[in-house]
Amino acid sequence: MDTPTTPGIEHLRVNGERLWASLMELARIGGTPKGGVCRLALTELDRQGRDLVLGWAREAGMSVTIDKIGNAFMRRAGRDNRLPPIMTGSHIDTQPTGGKFDGNYGVLAGLEVVRTLNDHGIETEAPIEVAFWTNEEGSRFVPVMMGSGVFAGAFTLAHAHAATDLDGKTVRDELERIGYMGSEAPGEHPVGAYFEAHIEQGPVLEDHGTTIGVVEGGLGIRWFDCTVVGMEAHAGPTPMGLRRDALQGATRIMQEVVAVALRHPPDGRGTVGMAQVFPNSRNVIPGRVTFSIDLRNSSDERVDQMAAEVKAFAARVAQESGLEVRLEQVSSYPAQQFHPDCVQAVARAAKALGYSHMPVVSGAGHDAVYVARLAPTGMIFVPCKDGISHNEIEQAEPEHLTAGCNVLLHAMLERAQQGR
Amino acid sequence: MDTPTTPGIEHLRVNGERLWASLMELARIGGTPKGGVCRLALTELDRQGRDLVLGWAREAGMSVTIDKIGNAFMRRAGRDNRLPPIMTGSHIDTQPTGGKFDGNYGVLAGLEVVRTLNDHGIETEAPIEVAFWTNEEGSRFVPVMMGSGVFAGAFTLAHAHAATDLDGKTVRDELERIGYMGSEAPGEHPVGAYFEAHIEQGPVLEDHGTTIGVVEGGLGIRWFDCTVVGMEAHAGPTPMGLRRDALQGATRIMQEVVAVALRHPPDGRGTVGMAQVFPNSRNVIPGRVTFSIDLRNSSDERVDQMAAEVKAFAARVAQESGLEVRLEQVSSYPAQQFHPDCVQAVARAAKALGYSHMPVVSGAGHDAVYVARLAPTGMIFVPCKDGISHNEIEQAEPEHLTAGCNVLLHAMLERAQQGR
Repeated sequence: MDTPTTPGIEHLRVNGERLWASLMELARIGGTPKGGVCRLALTELDRQGRDLVLGWAREAGMSVTIDKIGNAFMRRAGRDNRLPPIMTGSHIDTQPTGGKFDGNYGVLAGLEVVRTLNDHGIETEAPIEVAFWTNEEGSRFVPVMMGSGVFAGAFTLAHAHAATDLDGKTVRDELERIGYMGSEAPGEHPVGAYFEAHIEQGPVLEDHGTTIGVVEGGLGIRWFDCTVVGMEAHAGPTPMGLRRDALQGATRIMQEVVAVALRHPPDGRGTVGMAQVFPNSRNVIPGRVTFSIDLRNSSDERVDQMAAEVKAFAARVAQESGLEVRLEQVSSYPAQQFHPDCVQAVARAAKALGYSHMPVVSGAGHDAVYVARLAPTGMIFVPCKDGISHNEIEQAEPEHLTAGCNVLLHAMLERAQQGR
Repeated sequence: MDTPTTPGIEHLRVNGERLWASLMELARIGGTPKGGVCRLALTELDRQGRDLVLGWAREAGMSVTIDKIGNAFMRRAGRDNRLPPIMTGSHIDTQPTGGKFDGNYGVLAGLEVVRTLNDHGIETEAPIEVAFWTNEEGSRFVPVMMGSGVFAGAFTLAHAHAATDLDGKTVRDELERIGYMGSEAPGEHPVGAYFEAHIEQGPVLEDHGTTIGVVEGGLGIRWFDCTVVGMEAHAGPTPMGLRRDALQGATRIMQEVVAVALRHPPDGRGTVGMAQVFPNSRNVIPGRVTFSIDLRNSSDERVDQMAAEVKAFAARVAQESGLEVRLEQVSSYPAQQFHPDCVQAVARAAKALGYSHMPVVSGAGHDAVYVARLAPTGMIFVPCKDGISHNEIEQAEPEHLTAGCNVLLHAMLERAQQGR
């Protein structure tokens, strides 16, 4: 570090017990009998969760701004408040059968960073902010990552406001009802740099016995729907040579989705998660099969190459089998590299703190992936048990959460003291 | 033929227009707007259909017996009425979206044989009978082929009587309600020989441009349920090497089901008709897949060999992938060879009549397959358009139906004049 720092600041550590206690207290709002949390975006429970977190922020001396999509920014002033804030955050809405840590950890880790700075009377050059973004999960309203998506200009505020839940209630009305329709235009809030701490939601760190994942970026994603059409016929009276079995063509493509991922290591991923067979009767040769294809890789070039190979294979299956094969892209999310300065800040902090760490990619979407379009961004992953998330049994070790929070503290301090 | 026959009997032909007219008249009962028939077993419509057919039989001078499962036997006396009758028949119940020909053709072809004999004043040595068997389709009550199954002792009368539909109505009560609970004990009715004319319900005859299928027997059938268990996980954060994707293991076994059939020609058949993926979400690696396996072949040895090969393959997939694979047999129908005398009588009649003909096997179940356990049996197939059946668009050409009926006439005459 080439700027003056508070003497002894390298010995600064967060209060892991306080972080854990805050996580457990927030998890009581919408807590489920199985130990999970159901706190859907813009519900009464979400309002209670938001109020609790903002109350803690105000107790910690922070000021609060809300924007028109309900994103909340909690600010701790710096020495030079003309500098854009060094920001962290995540989301506090959950899946219907969500856990205590997904999103909530990133927000409360940010609060714990501020509390730690307060405990030790440390002033930063740039202000520090902690954000929570509206409706990351997308369980009640689509699109997912709504607050950060509007903030980053991925889609418009009007589009997000008009989204409805199953009861026909709009995001706009629900924001007003719970008192979180702010006045600031989304995206006008300056961001000097952004860090997000999150449970991994995957098995890599646990598999490697590593505490900190230094996230280098988010995978590009391509979603397709595939339909294979053959000829429905009776299983008994139809000899093999006179069949047009849609499922047999479909299984070849399903296997290629995995094979193409294995041909594009280390980050290629291919998944068929959804499949339906018609008419789905034991003694009827399937006349039609529909299934989903999910392709991911660390660059758009790589994932587009994977998609091209799957398409070519599907065309070959159609030609060889006489089946009709339709492949339609239904969604596309670009790959997002995080900023080298932020990635290195995370790696440096982990190393300085003596935690085992490794570079990883984020296979799932996160608010950070959108914020990275506007400002230098990095993420910190910590292990979660068996890689399980979006599940009431989601679990993380207190020492891992503390470690991730310490990394967040020091990565943010490095950027905040540099004033950018 | 080594027994005396009526002079000139080889020139005898059925009245194809009368047969067609009867088929069309019966098809009006339960007729659907799309040109099909919905006449489920033991409904009011079934009663109307039964009454119509039995009325025609009485007009043709036949006597009627009903047994305790509602099977109806329409009898035209012979010269020696101590001889067991030469019988034909099929069923008149239909699928919910059934056609006009499945089953109905076999019953009305039998009636047309009798009408033709009446027209020409021909007396047979043995009596001639035409039967319709209760609930062949199994759409409303299971098991399928209920009437002929009870008749052949495949399961008990009490078991069949206790079967219920979706409203909880029993076969026993419905038989009584529609007036078809007869007095005869099923299976006590003598059968000298049995022939059944039926649309093929498959594409083989049409593919060969052949009019008459000389059915040599029914395929043995084995049904399995297969469950593959892996580990449900997020598609994004889970690298390929740390996955236990149940669908990928399942697709290998699904392909083997077809491969094993191709390794056991000419009659091996393998079908996966039904499949379900759990949790069936686009971005979740499947944790469990269940699917059906339908294996068929012309002998029990062959179909059991096929089953053994699929089981061994499934065990290999489990071992190689670390997935759990469970394979459970849920049904088994033995292969049934038809009686050489009856098969040859059908072939001789087709040849004498100058119709193109070929040996075929029956891949689907038919009442004849059960009756064959009690008496020498043969079947006659005629083509149906595109092999489609169990569908309102089921179609057959009048000249093919006439040809099949002429073959039935002469095969029955050969046996009836021989008195066995």
